Amino acid sequence: MRFGDTDAAGVMHFYQLLRWCHEAWEDSLNRYGITAAEIFPGCRADQAPPSIALPIVHCEADFLQPVHGGDQLAVTLKPARLDPSQYEVNFLFQLDEINVAKGIIRQLAINPETRRRCAIPEAIDRWLEASAIGTIGPL
Amino acid sequence: MRFGDTDAAGVMHFYQLLRWCHEAWEDSLNRYGITAAEIFPGCRADQAPPSIALPIVHCEADFLQPVHGGDQLAVTLKPARLDPSQYEVNFLFQLDEINVAKGIIRQLAINPETRRRCAIPEAIDRWLEASAIGTIGPL
Amino acid sequence: MRFGDTDAAGVMHFYQLLRWCHEAWEDSLNRYGITAAEIFPGCRADQAPPSIALPIVHCEADFLQPVHGGDQLAVTLKPARLDPSQYEVNFLFQLDEINVAKGIIRQLAINPETRRRCAIPEAIDRWLEASAIGTIGPL
Amino acid sequence: MRFGDTDAAGVMHFYQLLRWCHEAWEDSLNRYGITAAEIFPGCRADQAPPSIALPIVHCEADFLQPVHGGDQLAVTLKPARLDPSQYEVNFLFQLDEINVAKGIIRQLAINPETRRRCAIPEAIDRWLEASAIGTIGPL
Repeated sequence: MRFGDTDAAGVMHFYQLLRWCHEAWEDSLNRYGITAAEIFPGCRADQAPPSIALPIVHCEADFLQPVHGGDQLAVTLKPARLDPSQYEVNFLFQLDEINVAKGIIRQLAINPETRRRCAIPEAIDRWLEASAIGTIGPL
Repeated sequence: MRFGDTDAAGVMHFYQLLRWCHEAWEDSLNRYGITAAEIFPGCRADQAPPSIALPIVHCEADFLQPVHGGDQLAVTLKPARLDPSQYEVNFLFQLDEINVAKGIIRQLAINPETRRRCAIPEAIDRWLEASAIGTIGPL
Repeated sequence: MRFGDTDAAGVMHFYQLLRWCHEAWEDSLNRYGITAAEIFPGCRADQAPPSIALPIVHCEADFLQPVHGGDQLAVTLKPARLDPSQYEVNFLFQLDEINVAKGIIRQLAINPETRRRCAIPEAIDRWLEASAIGTIGPL
Repeated sequence: MRFGDTDAAGVMHFYQLLRWCHEAWEDSLNRYGITAAEIFPGCRADQAPPSIALPIVHCEADFLQPVHGGDQLAVTLKPARLDPSQYEVNFLFQLDEINVAKGIIRQLAINPETRRRCAIPEAIDRWLEASAIGTIGPL
């Protein structure tokens, strides 16, 4: 855990955990061979912007133990399809195998023009399948 | 909504909402005459640090509508005591009276040395009472 | 100063100052009647995106005194045109009339397509003129 | 570069670069065998807090090229002692060997009680020596 993620109580400032969740999700996609440009807007101009937007519709976190600067946390993530256009990712943060925090991020697939629900992008779908049979390990 | 709170999707980056919740809570305490030094560690050295810590044990947010740079959001907050050592604050964000997002922050009162639960600090207790009878308005 | 802007040293975490500089600049434009949509991309879709981009090309900050949670800082800003396509804004942060920090943000006007320099947008130009004759006060 | 570090202009939001500088510095110390607890307050309670504080007194950044989500930047850092109680670290960010940004962080060694200048901590001193003879590579 980085010094810049602490606050004057001496421990992790709460919402930084949700930043780490998102970054762990980005890393997991990347390990599975999904490039940032397939999923995220704003990548290099020679890459077509993604045709499906994935706004976060819900997030939550539970803080079980204080997290200090210098703590080396392990994060495990477990995605689940909720319906054809929605999925969530559960994150578990551990320090020396003790659970210190949990997070959830839920995303909805929409057409960025009409903002109506659509099917989850194929790349995410493959990633969801892969995780269901256990091929994605802790980061 | 500030430019620095957006991301490359062109709208608010999700966890910034939880920052706004915390800031709205700080503002509400302040309006009710509770100084930062009564509640938060790290204030000026001539002020005794608070004898009770209030770690956030849970937070969540629902994102109902996209929030754009320049949007003038109104936030309403509604605190509730959950048990003698725990309370939560519900936040509603509106744009032109349309609900755009909701947030919840739950805090536990503990002794900062022993890290065991204790009674909610008196100042917070007064603030919870006041809100129950409706004297705190939208920020 | 907000609790979320501190770190475990008990004082403001350094780069938050540059966030405040940018926000103070946004507030100053706004007071002068310049809407966010005139300057920033990502505003409401019924507003045309700005035809000139203003990337930050340089920023710096000097930290003169520790800033604590609960400190009520005053910020004064002083913009200056550097050349026809470049300007900078100097920010001074004070606590009880004592200087606690300074910041500078320098921005370049470019065509967002070609990324070549162009003239500073007219709205910013008017704001620069106004400040030169002293009509913008401390925030 | 992470999606959460962008803004609605589609590229890196400026002050995130200074966050990366600090994190690169933390990584460099760590690689050189200096634990977070030796340098940063707020680490685990079984570790004595550092007896010397290292507030940042100046920082700056130059932005040479836009940085997009998904860009894999390399960072090189070059520290220099300025006087017995002060040093700075220069950071260079490159994408495919093209310079995209530079940063500087300057820190002052002080006694945290008296807030008077003191000698740079021994661990940092060793790290400065090592870098002068070139044993710390790019991160």
